Amino acid sequence: MNLEVQWIVGFVDGEGCFHVAINNNQATKSGIQIQPEFSVVQHQQDIQILYALKKYFQCGQVGQNHGERYMFRVRGQENLRDRILPFFEKHKLKTKKRIDFEKFRDVVRMVEKGDRLTEDGVKKIRAIQKTMNRKREKSKI
Amino acid sequence: MNLEVQWIVGFVDGEGCFHVAINNNQATKSGIQIQPEFSVVQHQQDIQILYALKKYFQCGQVGQNHGERYMFRVRGQENLRDRILPFFEKHKLKTKKRIDFEKFRDVVRMVEKGDRLTEDGVKKIRAIQKTMNRKREKSKI
Repeated sequence: MNLEVQWIVGFVDGEGCFHVAINNNQATKSGIQIQPEFSVVQHQQDIQILYALKKYFQCGQVGQNHGERYMFRVRGQENLRDRILPFFEKHKLKTKKRIDFEKFRDVVRMVEKGDRLTEDGVKKIRAIQKTMNRKREKSKI
Repeated sequence: MNLEVQWIVGFVDGEGCFHVAINNNQATKSGIQIQPEFSVVQHQQDIQILYALKKYFQCGQVGQNHGERYMFRVRGQENLRDRILPFFEKHKLKTKKRIDFEKFRDVVRMVEKGDRLTEDGVKKIRAIQKTMNRKREKSKI
């Protein structure tokens, strides 16, 4: 299955998620792990769509999410910086999910600069993360 | 906002719904009302997408669904036959929602032929409706 660029944009406007997890992790220098993740979840009947996305973006993984739901997931600084960010910068999302993408992009760039290693950087990333996705909907930003 | 064809296909693959309601209605000849409906639901923050779809398809209505959710909805034989069916016949959905669309199309065509007026026609439409959407997922068709 080959996916057209605009089909991907429309599908991600509907089903995609740009998420930043912030976890305590003593193995890291700051004691904090920042994990940006791009994902798309589908019922197992449409798992071939997830593999087509993986093929298109040439990165990420497909795995079980919960029950009959499966997930295409991209983590890792290089994958996000070199494959996911350029795509959605070139091909703009049309829904308010674009705002989440832009915040997500800012976090990936801050991680790139090394901001996750500083207390101030982590504070900024936390502040951004608090206004994303459902929190954005609730806060009407 | 102008929508590209493939963006619409991708977005409907994610967010669209092809549904057939079958209600008792003594005002109709058969006592049954068959109501096919194409719809897309969004949070009110993305209501402009619903209006853009309405503009693109040149039919349908945008209204409140429940709470902060809004719906673009197309009913009516002519709208479905002349605007919705040709679009999705030309531009194929990529997810299994295509199967729902094809069943939906069959129902719209049966209504066109007058099948909703006959007992046998209603029986056939009921049989199709029972395998659509979530019932399709459950039945793994």
